[in-house]
Amino acid sequence: SKFEYVRDFEADDTCLAHCWVVVRLDGRNFHRFAEKHNFAKPNDSRALHLMTKCAQTVMEELEDIVIAYGQSDEYSFVFKRKSNWFKRRASKFMTHVASQFASSYVFYWRDYFEDQPLLYPPGFDGRGTLAADKNEILFSEFNINYNNEPPMYRKGTVLLWQKVDEVTTKEVKLPVEMEGKKMAVTRTRTKPVPLHCDIIGDAFWKEHPEILDEDS
Amino acid sequence: SKFEYVRDFEADDTCLAHCWVVVRLDGRNFHRFAEKHNFAKPNDSRALHLMTKCAQTVMEELEDIVIAYGQSDEYSFVFKRKSNWFKRRASKFMTHVASQFASSYVFYWRDYFEDQPLLYPPGFDGRGTLAADKNEILFSEFNINYNNEPPMYRKGTVLLWQKVDEVTTKEVKLPVEMEGKKMAVTRTRTKPVPLHCDIIGDAFWKEHPEILDEDS
Amino acid sequence: SKFEYVRDFEADDTCLAHCWVVVRLDGRNFHRFAEKHNFAKPNDSRALHLMTKCAQTVMEELEDIVIAYGQSDEYSFVFKRKSNWFKRRASKFMTHVASQFASSYVFYWRDYFEDQPLLYPPGFDGRGTLAADKNEILFSEFNINYNNEPPMYRKGTVLLWQKVDEVTTKEVKLPVEMEGKKMAVTRTRTKPVPLHCDIIGDAFWKEHPEILDEDS
Amino acid sequence: SKFEYVRDFEADDTCLAHCWVVVRLDGRNFHRFAEKHNFAKPNDSRALHLMTKCAQTVMEELEDIVIAYGQSDEYSFVFKRKSNWFKRRASKFMTHVASQFASSYVFYWRDYFEDQPLLYPPGFDGRGTLAADKNEILFSEFNINYNNEPPMYRKGTVLLWQKVDEVTTKEVKLPVEMEGKKMAVTRTRTKPVPLHCDIIGDAFWKEHPEILDEDS
Ligand SMILES: Nc1nc2c(ncn2[C@H]2C[C@H](O)[C@@H](COP(=O)(O)OP(=O)(O)OP(=O)(O)O)O2)c(=O)[nH]1
Ligand SMILES: Nc1nc2c(ncn2[C@H]2C[C@H](O)[C@@H](COP(=O)(O)OP(=O)(O)OP(=O)(O)O)O2)c(=O)[nH]1
Ligand SMILES: Nc1nc2c(ncn2[C@H]2C[C@H](O)[C@@H](COP(=O)(O)OP(=O)(O)OP(=O)(O)O)O2)c(=O)[nH]1
Ligand SMILES: Nc1nc2c(ncn2[C@H]2C[C@H](O)[C@@H](COP(=O)(O)OP(=O)(O)OP(=O)(O)O)O2)c(=O)[nH]1
Ligand SMILES: O=P(O)(O)OP(=O)(O)OP(=O)(O)O
Ligand SMILES: O=P(O)(O)OP(=O)(O)OP(=O)(O)O
Ligand SMILES: O=P(O)(O)OP(=O)(O)OP(=O)(O)O
Ligand SMILES: O=P(O)(O)OP(=O)(O)OP(=O)(O)O
Ligand SMILES: [Mg+2]
Ligand SMILES: [Mg+2]
Ligand SMILES: [Mg+2]
Ligand SMILES: [Mg+2]
Ligand SMILES: [Mg+2]
Ligand SMILES: [Mg+2]
Ligand SMILES: [Mg+2]
Ligand SMILES: [Mg+2]
Ligand SMILES: [Mg+2]
Ligand SMILES: [Mg+2]
Ligand SMILES: [Mg+2]
Ligand SMILES: [Mg+2]
Repeated sequence: SKFEYVRDFEADDTCLAHCWVVVRLDGRNFHRFAEKHNFAKPNDSRALHLMTKCAQTVMEELEDIVIAYGQSDEYSFVFKRKSNWFKRRASKFMTHVASQFASSYVFYWRDYFEDQPLLYPPGFDGRGTLAADKNEILFSEFNINYNNEPPMYRKGTVLLWQKVDEVTTKEVKLPVEMEGKKMAVTRTRTKPVPLHCDIIGDAFWKEHPEILDEDS
Repeated sequence: SKFEYVRDFEADDTCLAHCWVVVRLDGRNFHRFAEKHNFAKPNDSRALHLMTKCAQTVMEELEDIVIAYGQSDEYSFVFKRKSNWFKRRASKFMTHVASQFASSYVFYWRDYFEDQPLLYPPGFDGRGTLAADKNEILFSEFNINYNNEPPMYRKGTVLLWQKVDEVTTKEVKLPVEMEGKKMAVTRTRTKPVPLHCDIIGDAFWKEHPEILDEDS
Repeated sequence: SKFEYVRDFEADDTCLAHCWVVVRLDGRNFHRFAEKHNFAKPNDSRALHLMTKCAQTVMEELEDIVIAYGQSDEYSFVFKRKSNWFKRRASKFMTHVASQFASSYVFYWRDYFEDQPLLYPPGFDGRGTLAADKNEILFSEFNINYNNEPPMYRKGTVLLWQKVDEVTTKEVKLPVEMEGKKMAVTRTRTKPVPLHCDIIGDAFWKEHPEILDEDS
Repeated sequence: SKFEYVRDFEADDTCLAHCWVVVRLDGRNFHRFAEKHNFAKPNDSRALHLMTKCAQTVMEELEDIVIAYGQSDEYSFVFKRKSNWFKRRASKFMTHVASQFASSYVFYWRDYFEDQPLLYPPGFDGRGTLAADKNEILFSEFNINYNNEPPMYRKGTVLLWQKVDEVTTKEVKLPVEMEGKKMAVTRTRTKPVPLHCDIIGDAFWKEHPEILDEDS
């Protein structure tokens, strides 16, 4: 192919098979960004909800993310062990997460910050880490910011795929006597649902053994 | 620091010193994106100008990019050999370029597509390559898509830092008889300026020896 | 330290935690080496025993090797998952295995090739692979050369750590009437012991579950 | 090929094109080795000459090494920028250097240590570094151990390829009256020749500009 030549100079960044890939994003200079956009201190709920909306978009648009976890200006995404998305190339994982999150942040801004215009397009950095052991993810990825904080603040947002009943109304062709009526249609979909709970304790992981399953 | 533990599981992705780092972005599934947003075929000038605006933003917001080159749904950015931005970590380079480009794409969309609403937030993938030799960049990075195209189409957009005279009007305190007058103020700034020229021929590189200078 | 500067230019080759590191050696140009040293065809038992002696030396001199497997001019060594030898640097693993094997090959040559002088010092290449999953090792590392061979030849040499009773004679100070007598002393030691068995079938791994134990 | 499967788990360790690859070896635990083999202190000339003999063997048996430099129990080898030996795979470079050096050390031991038997086979570790800039090699690779030593000791052994006249005697078929006579035959060969000089000063590099030539 015509791209073969340039490939020669590109380091192979294939992630080791059978490991979890974890991509973590962090807002660039959000100290300034929060100030310029009048974020409430210390936690602006509009900002947190927007972050979560972006993370949901990332989970829906990209492949194989099993869980996400975020707080402040950062979000981490865990890909399933057996993912073969883009042949496990680290650069693809990191840049797709970063760009999808960033474009979503601007796209959905107005849904969360009604009276506060967006003054400039924000940046996010990303990094990719690997884990061959489930406990590494729990302790190094999620626990990381818990160390220095009192227990009551030890909750960020976790996004998990869950079945939800989605009710939509639909105009349907009906017999003449019911004309013009709408009908409620219930469909079960699997969506990334935000939970606010302590994911460090054993309780959470006993309830959700499938998330970081050896077979997932 | 509290992040030391997670660092253990993160591959060191420091780019070799004294080499050029080249980051190339490419729109995700832009075949569909162009269709859904009614891009003109084969080249939509609004789309191209928006791409260039995003690339300029990337050059202005990030550090040490000396030249950028783009066409269709892709853009390449060359960092100077001696850049020590983020200690030359490849993941930082790639994700900052990808996220800044993506958020700018949504942010500036309306300035270029007045009558065409943006239907969903686009994604971009990125890759990082290294070059220890100037000719590698010219031939492998920029020449790459020239192979299969007739010479008349062999022009994309090049962005170079150039001095430009910026004229702004400023209300100034003046003697009573000139009160209320404005004054034109000319300031010289260095900005990324788009050129549409053949960057493959020798002519261009003889004119701009400094761009990929061994000392740059 | 004075070495910090050079470290900047050395890629970090730390092996991912919790994975098995497998180093495989292969004789350089042993087609010629076998010819020049009059190896019996197709298998020279002196050569095979010398290879096994070298592999035992490698296991005894280096740290954390749990199993080794060899045939023809090649030998593979599996380090335990939790090994932290030389902080898991791949270059240290590979070069220590390669150099220890090579120096042993010359050192012990005469014990196996009594009448055949060694004409020149042989070379060996090495490679390092990682496995996060036990089956990868069995199928990709050990099975590899089994594919094209009839079942009766599907046996190489496996080296496993086993307890062995070592009987040595020792001259001891004894009462006058037994003067000059020697005494047999039995000591139990753990040594790498060669087995010639089919390590592909389930039987072997059911008998030795500890070798590639998740906890090893 | 049958090896494709295992390749999937092997990180690509291709060295960046157009860079110098430098492999440095260091004797394993030579503090003990020197003691056990009664090395003279601080410098045993037999040991140094044996090291140099091994380095020459490495240069002759392997491809593309342009210069080598050693002292104490260590030796560094610089491959030419454009080397494509084994497709520039770092593991091949490091293990071939390490194993060839180690087997040669045992093989040639008796030529240098006549009265001192070799008690056990020594090990060597190796590492590979890359340099895109000539000065990196001079300062980081060679200068490294000079820092803490007084100038008079700032000399190790440098090995350079030089043309040498090799005189061999050869029995030749000659006219009847000269029958049985031998003839001296002079052949010019290029061999790695040891120099004991200061390679840090400018003088050396001005005399030998070709060694680390951009085109070499
Ligand atoms: N007031 C306010 N500030 C927030 C909120 N969420 C995040 N921030 C700010 C507080 C911190 O200064 C900053 C996040 O800390 P970082 O360590 O990520 O630093 P920052 O993004 O400034 O720099 P960086 O580019 O990541 O190195 O974002 C919020 O809800 N309200
Ligand atoms: N009509 C139109 N299409 C364009 C224009 N610029 C780019 N495109 C479309 C044409 C190509 O189908 C596509 C770029 O080709 P790619 O190879 O990048 O494929 P695509 O982005 O669809 O998939 P990818 O996710 O990159 O693998 O974008 C334009 O100005 N006008
Ligand atoms: N006659 C004989 N030859 C053997 C014996 N063990 C190994 N060899 C030879 C047969 C093969 O030609 C060679 C091993 O095959 P390889 O694929 O490793 O090739 P070779 O070492 O020649 O080249 P290489 O440097 O590894 O690419 O060694 C033996 O016991 N007897
Ligand atoms: N007496 C004597 N000792 C030497 C000579 N050449 C090297 N050595 C010894 C002195 C040092 O203790 C040692 C080299 O220092 P290293 O830093 O390489 O330490 P060593 O090899 O003991 O440990 P290592 O496995 O490299 O970490 O070798 C020599 O000519 N004479
Ligand atoms: O995306 P393609 O198919 O045009 O080709 P590529 O970008 O070289 O391939 P990839 O995106 O898989 O790196
Ligand atoms: O960004 P910091 O300073 O909070 O800490 P970090 O994210 O661990 O550091 P870096 O961004 O340099 O990887
Ligand atoms: O071996 P040392 O301690 O002299 O120092 P080094 O060789 O730089 O360290 P390492 O062998 O751990 O790479
Ligand atoms: O050496 P070969 O040709 O038997 O095959 P390989 O060992 O898989 O190839 P390489 O030595 O090039 O890694
Ligand atoms: Mg950070
Ligand atoms: Mg931040
Ligand atoms: Mg943060
Ligand atoms: Mg692509
Ligand atoms: Mg595209
Ligand atoms: Mg494209
Ligand atoms: Mg081979
Ligand atoms: Mg071989
Ligand atoms: Mg072989
Ligand atoms: Mg050392
Ligand atoms: Mg040493
Ligand atoms: Mg040393």
